[in-house]
Amino acid sequence: MGMTMTQKILAHHAKLESVRAGQLIMADLDMVLGNDITAPVAINEFGKFGKETVFNKDKVALVPDHFSPNKDIKAAEQCKALRCFARDHEITNYFDVGQMGIEHALLPEKGLVGAGDLIIGADSHTCTYGALGAFSTGVGSTDMACGMATGQAWFKVPTAIKFNLTGSFAPHVSGKDLILHIIGMIGVDGALYQSMEFSGEGVKNLTIDDRFTIANMAIEAGAKNGIFPVDEVTLEYLKEHCPKDPVLYEADSDAEYEQVINIDLSAVKSTVSFPHLPSNTRTIDEVGEVRIDQVVIGSCTNGHISDLRQAAAILKGKKIAKHVRTLIFPATQEIWKQAMHEGLFDIFIDSGCAVSTPTCGPCLGGHMGILAEGERAVSTTNRNFVGRMGHVKSEVYLASPAVAAASAIAGYIADPAKVMEE
Amino acid sequence: MGMTMTQKILAHHAKLESVRAGQLIMADLDMVLGNDITAPVAINEFGKFGKETVFNKDKVALVPDHFSPNKDIKAAEQCKALRCFARDHEITNYFDVGQMGIEHALLPEKGLVGAGDLIIGADSHTCTYGALGAFSTGVGSTDMACGMATGQAWFKVPTAIKFNLTGSFAPHVSGKDLILHIIGMIGVDGALYQSMEFSGEGVKNLTIDDRFTIANMAIEAGAKNGIFPVDEVTLEYLKEHCPKDPVLYEADSDAEYEQVINIDLSAVKSTVSFPHLPSNTRTIDEVGEVRIDQVVIGSCTNGHISDLRQAAAILKGKKIAKHVRTLIFPATQEIWKQAMHEGLFDIFIDSGCAVSTPTCGPCLGGHMGILAEGERAVSTTNRNFVGRMGHVKSEVYLASPAVAAASAIAGYIADPAKVMEE
Repeated sequence: MGMTMTQKILAHHAKLESVRAGQLIMADLDMVLGNDITAPVAINEFGKFGKETVFNKDKVALVPDHFSPNKDIKAAEQCKALRCFARDHEITNYFDVGQMGIEHALLPEKGLVGAGDLIIGADSHTCTYGALGAFSTGVGSTDMACGMATGQAWFKVPTAIKFNLTGSFAPHVSGKDLILHIIGMIGVDGALYQSMEFSGEGVKNLTIDDRFTIANMAIEAGAKNGIFPVDEVTLEYLKEHCPKDPVLYEADSDAEYEQVINIDLSAVKSTVSFPHLPSNTRTIDEVGEVRIDQVVIGSCTNGHISDLRQAAAILKGKKIAKHVRTLIFPATQEIWKQAMHEGLFDIFIDSGCAVSTPTCGPCLGGHMGILAEGERAVSTTNRNFVGRMGHVKSEVYLASPAVAAASAIAGYIADPAKVMEE
Repeated sequence: MGMTMTQKILAHHAKLESVRAGQLIMADLDMVLGNDITAPVAINEFGKFGKETVFNKDKVALVPDHFSPNKDIKAAEQCKALRCFARDHEITNYFDVGQMGIEHALLPEKGLVGAGDLIIGADSHTCTYGALGAFSTGVGSTDMACGMATGQAWFKVPTAIKFNLTGSFAPHVSGKDLILHIIGMIGVDGALYQSMEFSGEGVKNLTIDDRFTIANMAIEAGAKNGIFPVDEVTLEYLKEHCPKDPVLYEADSDAEYEQVINIDLSAVKSTVSFPHLPSNTRTIDEVGEVRIDQVVIGSCTNGHISDLRQAAAILKGKKIAKHVRTLIFPATQEIWKQAMHEGLFDIFIDSGCAVSTPTCGPCLGGHMGILAEGERAVSTTNRNFVGRMGHVKSEVYLASPAVAAASAIAGYIADPAKVMEE
């Protein structure tokens, strides 16, 4: 029996010729990530390992991106804990405010994660790097601590679902619509502890940013990881960002999949997840009239340059509805600067948006855009659980940057194609 | 006995031929201001006046600038209270996130305050508009409520201190250094319930942004207001921003001043207020080595375009110290956009600063840059009381944008003149 792409990466990092689904393995780690919420706990646990320092000071990344710039005293103390640990252990990849970005956009941009790598991070959206043909997954703070101390982690080798993609997206449809469509189809536990392996000739029609968005939300279907094959698009991105040689893994032709799902990208419509689950999806023609109070464009899910371009294309020359606050969160300082240079900020500001420095901010109800009772937000983020962005009686509707921008203009959830016609 | 400039404005608005210091008067208001901290209280009190609506829907300004974009659920509810009140009473001058700015920069920019006006605001730095030859002062939320209901407020006519300015600033010295110098000289109660009236041929050498900064911090000397004569510089600013005809008042030649203080601007040095009082000043050559963790450039005090230009001139082509976070807060969306167009953001980002959307944020320990225990910030804001920017064991050093920028580069409090030489 052959192995899936994920299984091959795991086998290689466990120094095994092959692995099978369900097997427990110890594997070597190429990168261990933590942020200002999870790393302070891990740092505390790290002390219990009795190690003088981390296994490799170049293979730990600490990014205080959640409640920073420091929201309050508690956040300040958390960030300080990271900063002191990074200083004491000479951690190469510590990124403070000003050099920063949202971790899952920053690590690929800085070339710290690449094709064939095995990465754990104490953040559920660590699965993002699957876009680059890496195995990456979220872990708890204790596993992060163990990873920092030993350079290893244990895994149960996952089974897989294969998503066989064909065709290409219609205008205004993007990777976010695809992943919301998939989660709507299979449910928030539809890929529980499985790999979501994307393949097929449709993959080449996905930009690298589409792939980041799709892999990022694999966890929202319960998956252990999401992963893409490495192709020209990946190699071009890696050439620009990552100094390491990519290590290429391909699924065996006789790899076993628990399920194969065929998706014609041209049939995917703009999709919105209604409260309070990512799986509670409706296509844009089914949404009805949902008046909104806030729009959030950005985050680890949709804060890349393509995302900002898609939003700007809709907002250009238009004004957002008077009753809507629209917040833009470029995912990194580099993306921030690029968006500025491309004139996207002019479009955002002229249409009435506010542009923030990179932060996870409102996505997890952190800061910079929290909802009051009864308020509704359309957001390009990844979760819409009860109270996720503020008051337990607020509502979050997950959508693509194009739908979010169109909704900002209309003042209710809107189809970008229709807003562009008006 | 003649009247001071302040007394003349008060007399006119009280429909009296003259007033004398100590007299209690009722005066008509040209503008009543509130923010997301103070206005919710005022809105609640407003209900008790039994008025159907506000005295004049064009003469109330509501600016949710303190804890917005919403820091947390409480902030979200506060902002919602403003938003609903503005909608219900058709308040013309309600500015939400995206159209926004810090109130004391926004009102002049939008032309809502002009020469000769009488303005109250439920925020202590409402005295800022004295830069334009207006009488403006901070009041409590109850007075704001009364002002919104009746269009009037009571005042005790203040006595005055005259600051007779000559000369012009040395390079890298600005209005902030002057006002810190003055507060250091007279103390935080040195002008208690008095007018600080600026005059003399040195005034013409102060930019309008210098004057905003100086008038803004009159309250930090305990003053009821700070006020500048209206000259060509003022008229040029008003022509660009304010549709109203300026109403000019001049102090009588026999006006009474409790004190006249002569200041040669060319002798003013870069000045820093040490913890924990604005009056605890040292000139830059007296500061010693004070290692810092954070730099804040912006706020109602120093978030104007000139301030950002001064900081950028120092930061250009340089990198901030690795252990320092530097946060830039342009005071309004317009200033944000202008700074971007002038290339200042390129300088900030390249040197390692983070640029925020306008908010009062860290100035009052709100959000977006709170200090942990033991941390020190150099800040262009206006107060450095114990715990002002975070933990009670953190420290704030008040300074000009030039000193703040130089300190960001050096990693300790530094003289901009010396940093520019290096």
